[in-house]
Amino acid sequence: MEQGIYERGLQRLKEVDDIAGEKVIDSLADISPDLGRYVIEFGFGEIYSRPGLNLQQRELATVAALTALGTAQPQLKVHLAAALNVGLSRLEITETIMQMALYAGFPAALNGMFAAKEVFAEHDRLASLQASQH
Amino acid sequence: MEQGIYERGLQRLKEVDDIAGEKVIDSLADISPDLGRYVIEFGFGEIYSRPGLNLQQRELATVAALTALGTAQPQLKVHLAAALNVGLSRLEITETIMQMALYAGFPAALNGMFAAKEVFAEHDRLASLQASQH
Amino acid sequence: MEQGIYERGLQRLKEVDDIAGEKVIDSLADISPDLGRYVIEFGFGEIYSRPGLNLQQRELATVAALTALGTAQPQLKVHLAAALNVGLSRLEITETIMQMALYAGFPAALNGMFAAKEVFAEHDRLASLQASQH
Amino acid sequence: MEQGIYERGLQRLKEVDDIAGEKVIDSLADISPDLGRYVIEFGFGEIYSRPGLNLQQRELATVAALTALGTAQPQLKVHLAAALNVGLSRLEITETIMQMALYAGFPAALNGMFAAKEVFAEHDRLASLQASQH
Amino acid sequence: MEQGIYERGLQRLKEVDDIAGEKVIDSLADISPDLGRYVIEFGFGEIYSRPGLNLQQRELATVAALTALGTAQPQLKVHLAAALNVGLSRLEITETIMQMALYAGFPAALNGMFAAKEVFAEHDRLASLQASQH
Amino acid sequence: MEQGIYERGLQRLKEVDDIAGEKVIDSLADISPDLGRYVIEFGFGEIYSRPGLNLQQRELATVAALTALGTAQPQLKVHLAAALNVGLSRLEITETIMQMALYAGFPAALNGMFAAKEVFAEHDRLASLQASQH
Repeated sequence: MEQGIYERGLQRLKEVDDIAGEKVIDSLADISPDLGRYVIEFGFGEIYSRPGLNLQQRELATVAALTALGTAQPQLKVHLAAALNVGLSRLEITETIMQMALYAGFPAALNGMFAAKEVFAEHDRLASLQASQH
Repeated sequence: MEQGIYERGLQRLKEVDDIAGEKVIDSLADISPDLGRYVIEFGFGEIYSRPGLNLQQRELATVAALTALGTAQPQLKVHLAAALNVGLSRLEITETIMQMALYAGFPAALNGMFAAKEVFAEHDRLASLQASQH
Repeated sequence: MEQGIYERGLQRLKEVDDIAGEKVIDSLADISPDLGRYVIEFGFGEIYSRPGLNLQQRELATVAALTALGTAQPQLKVHLAAALNVGLSRLEITETIMQMALYAGFPAALNGMFAAKEVFAEHDRLASLQASQH
Repeated sequence: MEQGIYERGLQRLKEVDDIAGEKVIDSLADISPDLGRYVIEFGFGEIYSRPGLNLQQRELATVAALTALGTAQPQLKVHLAAALNVGLSRLEITETIMQMALYAGFPAALNGMFAAKEVFAEHDRLASLQASQH
Repeated sequence: MEQGIYERGLQRLKEVDDIAGEKVIDSLADISPDLGRYVIEFGFGEIYSRPGLNLQQRELATVAALTALGTAQPQLKVHLAAALNVGLSRLEITETIMQMALYAGFPAALNGMFAAKEVFAEHDRLASLQASQH
Repeated sequence: MEQGIYERGLQRLKEVDDIAGEKVIDSLADISPDLGRYVIEFGFGEIYSRPGLNLQQRELATVAALTALGTAQPQLKVHLAAALNVGLSRLEITETIMQMALYAGFPAALNGMFAAKEVFAEHDRLASLQASQH
């Protein structure tokens, strides 16, 4: 893919989740940097850069899907943080997760909810850390 | 569950998808009417009647999850029709489905897209039928 | 595996579902007879021949699992017929399927229930056919 | 849902698994108490309170399904403890798990078996603790 | 993505499965041409064009994965045909499918095997058709 | 199954992964030794001892399937080590994992890649340990 898409993807990833995104890419550097590049180029440079849905809708869809699948806890946590970053409220997030009980069963919803609890607590911890530094 | 919840669920189901919802409930009548009752009471009387997400957000989350799971084509079609009914655009729907390629792979996205193609065509057929009747 | 296990498996398969089991084995004859042999030897000659669970418990567990997985409709139908054959009541079967709404979501339970509806109807059809022949 | 169903669900949950059930509900209190309420009301007040299957059959079905799905280890452990509580023998439980090798593959059966090993050990530990206190 | 990748992807797709690939792309033309473009660009222009694995290894991996997942029968059939096209023998294909019984259970292996039976029969039909035209 | 198959399976398991295989069997000894016996007899004595695919092809198929399923991390790690043992290169392994992004989504590929990173590091650690002992 051309250079422009990588740059666009990196930019988009930064809007969505600066810290976690970078951590994933870094952790792939010594095993499969190209997989990291595809996440940026195809994931964020293409899909997340398309018109038709705003970032709040995209993160809501992703939280729903990863909660339902139940096989991607690390990625769900990244996107729970991203969901907060793009402006979804905690209520919108927990309602989305709860709704998955209907489509993927209660264990999926429970495991998604416990992931959200963890991500929200980390978010609070970082916010209070930042507050105390000012 | 009390009577009120059943009534509320039925009302909510009608807002979302009048025809398909009723068809599912009817088809359960002679094998497990209680499963149909739970769909209405717990699914629509509880979850879909909660504040925090509007119906467009709920249907977007459901389309995302059912596309990603790939084990619920009949229910995906019901909710693709519901997504149109509650005002999601075709573009919002196809973008949601396409995004699932990232989280559940291309076959999931392709099978979701072919379901959308079918549901949109049926929607057009019904619309042109109604138009011709006036 | 030794000859005895194949014979024992065939015997066990006949107790569980004479017609459907044979049909599966036959349909594998020209593509992978060994896969059919493993179904009989390992599936029925080993697992279904073990003490510790009776056949009703084994079929109840299988109906639960296949309903929850949602990727094995043909095999679910075979085991729904088998569940009737080993003496589970229709109520026990539909309650097992309904319970899966909790663990795998409503679409899984609904698709399982519609499979049961089909299998029960076929069972009635065969029963009335047999009755009319006497 | 009306008050009665919540009370009935709580009662049913206590019969099935007093400690683990309460822990799940408690851990939801500050993130989504309503999800905990639905587990009690819909899960235990409705489904697990229905006639047609006894609690041993219900737990056997749940152990089968959660082992096969492979995405719900915490919930599988809760229900392995519940299975013991309602009187299923260890042999019935391990046979159910082993049978899942046929329907969901060996990794699912192995991971289920290791969960059972852990739950049985904890059960023994608690039993010996109680014995030493008398 | 730049033009070159689309061309490379189309070329690669033709090597793998000329007819079925084109049919998928065509069927997306009026609902989501971009999804078809991504299949070509990212799927075939990137992944299937990478060094490190030859096309036989790639198709063997794909047949294994799609058989195990059990949610992608249409795509499994496309790749069963592709597996033949790139030179895998029928024995290599059926052994790969059979092996999935270990990792995803017998229903997955059975449904994969019946798909292979269908694809092999269609392959024979086309071959005899071509033979009769000469 | 007869004695010969157990011996053949044990032999085959040793070729594939001496240490990890034995560990799994040992850890089943006090909960379900028969499940361990079936892994050896049916898994290695039957399936992995069949002609038609060599061990490199079998491990490539297994790595692909377990990465795609995403529910079997412990077993994936065993087979990543086995893949190295039977002579697949690290590049062949990481390419197989990366390809799964197409069929099961990026989270499946990422989680598979992180498992490979861990297994490769352990492999290096053992190799440098052995080197230092000479």
